[in-house]
Amino acid sequence: MPRFVLASVCVVALAVVRAQEASVPDAAKLEQMIARFAPTDIGADLSQLSDADRRVLGKLVEASTIIDALFLRQVWAGNDAMLLDLVRDQSPAGRARLHYFLINKGPWSRLDHNQAFVPGAPAKPEGANYYPPAATKADLERWMQSLPEAERARATGFFTVIRRSGNSFSIVPYNVEYQGELARAASLLREAAALATEPTLKTFLVKRAEALLSNDYYESDVAWMELKGVIEPTIGPYEVYEDELFNYKAAFESFITVQDAAETAKLQRFAAELQDIENHLPIDPRLRNPKLGALAPITVVNEIFAAGDANRGVQTAAFNLPNDERVIREKGAKRVMLKNVQDAKFAKTLVPISKVVLPAADQKDVSFEAFFTQILVHELMHGLGPHNISKNGRATTVRQELKETYSFLEEAKADISSLFAVQHLIDKGVLPKSLEPTLYTTFLASTFRSIRFGVTEAHGKGIAVQLNSLLDSRAFITNADGTLKVNPDRIKEGVTALTRDIMTIQAEGDYVKAKALGDRLGVVRPEIQRMLEQLTAVPVDIEPRFTTSSLLVRR
Amino acid sequence: MPRFVLASVCVVALAVVRAQEASVPDAAKLEQMIARFAPTDIGADLSQLSDADRRVLGKLVEASTIIDALFLRQVWAGNDAMLLDLVRDQSPAGRARLHYFLINKGPWSRLDHNQAFVPGAPAKPEGANYYPPAATKADLERWMQSLPEAERARATGFFTVIRRSGNSFSIVPYNVEYQGELARAASLLREAAALATEPTLKTFLVKRAEALLSNDYYESDVAWMELKGVIEPTIGPYEVYEDELFNYKAAFESFITVQDAAETAKLQRFAAELQDIENHLPIDPRLRNPKLGALAPITVVNEIFAAGDANRGVQTAAFNLPNDERVIREKGAKRVMLKNVQDAKFAKTLVPISKVVLPAADQKDVSFEAFFTQILVHELMHGLGPHNISKNGRATTVRQELKETYSFLEEAKADISSLFAVQHLIDKGVLPKSLEPTLYTTFLASTFRSIRFGVTEAHGKGIAVQLNSLLDSRAFITNADGTLKVNPDRIKEGVTALTRDIMTIQAEGDYVKAKALGDRLGVVRPEIQRMLEQLTAVPVDIEPRFTTSSLLVRR
Repeated sequence: MPRFVLASVCVVALAVVRAQEASVPDAAKLEQMIARFAPTDIGADLSQLSDADRRVLGKLVEASTIIDALFLRQVWAGNDAMLLDLVRDQSPAGRARLHYFLINKGPWSRLDHNQAFVPGAPAKPEGANYYPPAATKADLERWMQSLPEAERARATGFFTVIRRSGNSFSIVPYNVEYQGELARAASLLREAAALATEPTLKTFLVKRAEALLSNDYYESDVAWMELKGVIEPTIGPYEVYEDELFNYKAAFESFITVQDAAETAKLQRFAAELQDIENHLPIDPRLRNPKLGALAPITVVNEIFAAGDANRGVQTAAFNLPNDERVIREKGAKRVMLKNVQDAKFAKTLVPISKVVLPAADQKDVSFEAFFTQILVHELMHGLGPHNISKNGRATTVRQELKETYSFLEEAKADISSLFAVQHLIDKGVLPKSLEPTLYTTFLASTFRSIRFGVTEAHGKGIAVQLNSLLDSRAFITNADGTLKVNPDRIKEGVTALTRDIMTIQAEGDYVKAKALGDRLGVVRPEIQRMLEQLTAVPVDIEPRFTTSSLLVRR
Repeated sequence: MPRFVLASVCVVALAVVRAQEASVPDAAKLEQMIARFAPTDIGADLSQLSDADRRVLGKLVEASTIIDALFLRQVWAGNDAMLLDLVRDQSPAGRARLHYFLINKGPWSRLDHNQAFVPGAPAKPEGANYYPPAATKADLERWMQSLPEAERARATGFFTVIRRSGNSFSIVPYNVEYQGELARAASLLREAAALATEPTLKTFLVKRAEALLSNDYYESDVAWMELKGVIEPTIGPYEVYEDELFNYKAAFESFITVQDAAETAKLQRFAAELQDIENHLPIDPRLRNPKLGALAPITVVNEIFAAGDANRGVQTAAFNLPNDERVIREKGAKRVMLKNVQDAKFAKTLVPISKVVLPAADQKDVSFEAFFTQILVHELMHGLGPHNISKNGRATTVRQELKETYSFLEEAKADISSLFAVQHLIDKGVLPKSLEPTLYTTFLASTFRSIRFGVTEAHGKGIAVQLNSLLDSRAFITNADGTLKVNPDRIKEGVTALTRDIMTIQAEGDYVKAKALGDRLGVVRPEIQRMLEQLTAVPVDIEPRFTTSSLLVRR
């Protein structure tokens, strides 16, 4: 399932780096690259937690440090040696390299197409440290194809590495490859389980500890879906992005979080309104769904600590897990939204962007409340609107019909219809009227934050479609000085019209119209590009400093 | 073969630490513990080396950083995580912990019976990361005993780790356990081999790279014995001390060194004199060996870089390798003396000791020339004097007859007879007369450096025997203020007499006399103890800063 880091390529920032691809950046250049990550305190109020729960969190943070080191080793077999080497280098260049190494979990700048920034670092290995260093993809594929089915499943599975063995290859499960480290992590999870009072948390921790030792994660993934209570840990091998060779192998990561009670209550209120929103969607009433299915689990949390794959380069703001398709079939997947991380990104990137993009008078209308409410409702809106459709009398799905245009259009739909939905809830009195002026202005500023990451991936392209559409309908207006503002006379109409257009294309499964829309509006127009070029000095993301975790008694 | 770090326990320093074994030391205490290791530049003059040779050294240093990280992981499965954690801690306590962690290669103070100095560090695992964390020695022994002979040999071998596998254990060879890292190290050794011009160096590097990948070290150990030329690298898994459970498993280490031409020439000159020295030993002429065997290989080098097991806690000043008994039988073992490390220890520990121990007038007579010459000749003297003896008409060896008293007496013999031998070479005109006053005074000061480490191990006990014997014969004299000095009227006679006494005990294989000598003189007398207590502030050893290696183009 995708992880939402708002893309991994920074168009603007690249200019800094391109000129010197042959060598590595010097200390001054490196400091510029590092400055793209604004150091930010990340923590949460634990005053309502019991002492026991705080001790549970301490153990989980401690276990996460093991996860952090395992991920470093997974990225590259040279990482541990390079870290030790950089730690001893007291020169300014050495300090900067260590700093950026820790941000990137290796000597390659993830924001800059993995450009190396430490002298002598080789190209980032596509297969990370999951496959033998000199093995080619073709060699590995040939060997995998030659295996009996059960062995092939192990070779291509999430939780094994492939090693050279004489003239062939062998499969080494994670619980052998990382045995010493996993045994330590498992002990810490068991100690946490012993301290925990919430039964579902106890169960998850005990089963996850067993999984680390047995290499069978199924039962602990199920237990994770059933987690209740304030402590919400996600710890283990999960995402496969670091394996750029095959996307087979799971990287270790950890999110240690606590639930946000206020936002969780707000989510419940929104959930109760979803059918009413569906019933008022600005589309042909026959296209509305008279009975929405159960809401996919969503939880809003605050991050105490993130480690490994969950803390490299651009920070994760939300994730969907688990990835085991058997668990998804049986229990579904859970979406976890990291509110304090979103808040930090809002403060350190969106607010500075708004100071460039908006006229001075409108800057007061940029609010985190509006930003986060829209993100929450965006997630909910994925469940509304057309999904299972009929085309020429044939039952089909929007996804099947729209093919590669599906993703950007679905992202655009969730965004634009979230504005429609929030307005509906304001009009109905469920949300305060005071939210209205901030809603659209905050969204306008946030479009620049998204487009900055490029329009080649679905989210950025979907945003470009909306920005251009709202400009064309004069719901957004460009001022003489290039700044943009919301047109209060046209915005509601513009949002409603685009919601209708997109949902109608989806309902009709009209690939041709979807493609035409993307080609026409999913682009960066010159006036937008000029504005983006003024954002060079604005940080791209945050560098978290886990202030709460450092206060926990970990040992 | 033993490694000579002059012991691993510091009697004096212990007092600092004992009081707080329950908790960990605070930042101030930790700084005191760190201050026992005097930061010292370690390097060598490479101006005579070719560019190619300097590039070879750069590659070897780079490979050594891999070795460093592997050793860290071998010591404890939690080390990588703790390092990452400490690197991020900017508090004074955090900085001090990181510093001492890097000195000790883990969170335990090797000078203080492995007392933990980072909060939450468990007791140092006896089996390091070589055996499954929760496995007991009895469980492992039972399992090893149950294996067929060939498997048992692998399980108890140098180059495998033991891992849990279901309800039993399995054997994982180093070339699987550390495959990614060893492949990188092997590549770097091959790159070094390609740059090298000296054929024996090329051969060693190619064969050692093969060994890292194949797990078969025999041929590369043989190639190491045949190394010629200025570059002398020692890199691979060697010593078994870190495996305190069984002493089976080899720790990764690396010494990257260059030969010291002047000292190597001096060694040749000494070697030519050995038979003449033997012919003049102050023992019954019938006990002298009329035809000494070939000299065991000795090489004097300067260290450019040390990594892994070769750079933790007290620094290695000399070592004997390899450990493979088959290679020793066929090719012997080689003794490598690290001159610049000896020099650093001399400057940072022996000189400050001499300022306490000697009267002011004698301090000018403490010289590194005398110190190192005596150490070199000490090594040569092990080959002289009685070894194969006859007792009651039965052919036997000194080692067999003297049993546990053999080691301290042999160390004492090599020391005291080295003074005799150097005096003989001065009298003969082979060494300059100017050496004479410095020889004995330097030795007197150095006895305190050795005894400081305790008299429970052979070297310290042997030194105590000599110091007390020379005091009793008034070859050394105690001044009224407690300082000590050499008595020029008695010193030669005292040295000659003790050389005679010890060699005669050896020639007679007289266990009773040997034991009596050790019991009577191998002790710390009160006046010596009072002097030792004045040495608290003197550093125990050095913390090397590899100044030459940091100038090499490594990548």
